[in-house]
Amino acid sequence: MNRNVYFAGSIRGGRADAALYQKIIAYIQKTDDVLTEHVGNLSLNAHEQGRRDQLIYEQDTGWLRRADVVIAECTCPSLGVGYELAYAERFGIPCHIFYRHSQTDLSAMLTGDTYFHIHPYEKLEEILPLLDEILGNRQA
Amino acid sequence: MNRNVYFAGSIRGGRADAALYQKIIAYIQKTDDVLTEHVGNLSLNAHEQGRRDQLIYEQDTGWLRRADVVIAECTCPSLGVGYELAYAERFGIPCHIFYRHSQTDLSAMLTGDTYFHIHPYEKLEEILPLLDEILGNRQA
Repeated sequence: MNRNVYFAGSIRGGRADAALYQKIIAYIQKTDDVLTEHVGNLSLNAHEQGRRDQLIYEQDTGWLRRADVVIAECTCPSLGVGYELAYAERFGIPCHIFYRHSQTDLSAMLTGDTYFHIHPYEKLEEILPLLDEILGNRQA
Repeated sequence: MNRNVYFAGSIRGGRADAALYQKIIAYIQKTDDVLTEHVGNLSLNAHEQGRRDQLIYEQDTGWLRRADVVIAECTCPSLGVGYELAYAERFGIPCHIFYRHSQTDLSAMLTGDTYFHIHPYEKLEEILPLLDEILGNRQA
């Protein structure tokens, strides 16, 4: 309950999964806090330069360092998400990676790194009980 | 001359730029050593699981730690390249990032990170003199 969750999903790498990110974020928000709620904002303009990039970087890495856990949806390749995962590992933040295995082969830099918890899935419904378990919200 | 160069480019994220990677690698190899020559191999099967992922990870991170410099082509989004760049930063390896600015908006996690040297470009010919300069091979 009320853990700080850093949700990582593709922004400039492509917004094909934005609606899925929104659903995952909404589910987590039932019990916990999502620092990166904007990743699921369907009207987020990936090309918007409103927040200067250095400010985005400083804010996001600050959030990463104080996160209790990182939840990453990695079906859509993204340089930023790859960076965030390595950064979180550096600071010892637990990382859970989800990807639809029928649609993508995940990078060996992630699947080969024993630090990460990797969860292949196909449908959103499969994720939800795993999220409960990761966040410690599963009913006994 | 004979510097150890880690060239980073997308493999499982997509091979659209594989021929470009090959040309950049061949250019660097005229004067220096490229640890990751396979990234430019046009017959590399991105889905091949021949090398087990954990072995790939151990080998690539080992190469990163002993590289003199990382040269990354980042036009095609890639989780692995994002991871590699953060990993190289952690170990203090200089990183030069190239991307075609008419084709992609680079992640703010890269453009906003003052550690990285970012080089937008359009044509291969623009890269070559920059590579000479980075590698210290420019004629006085």
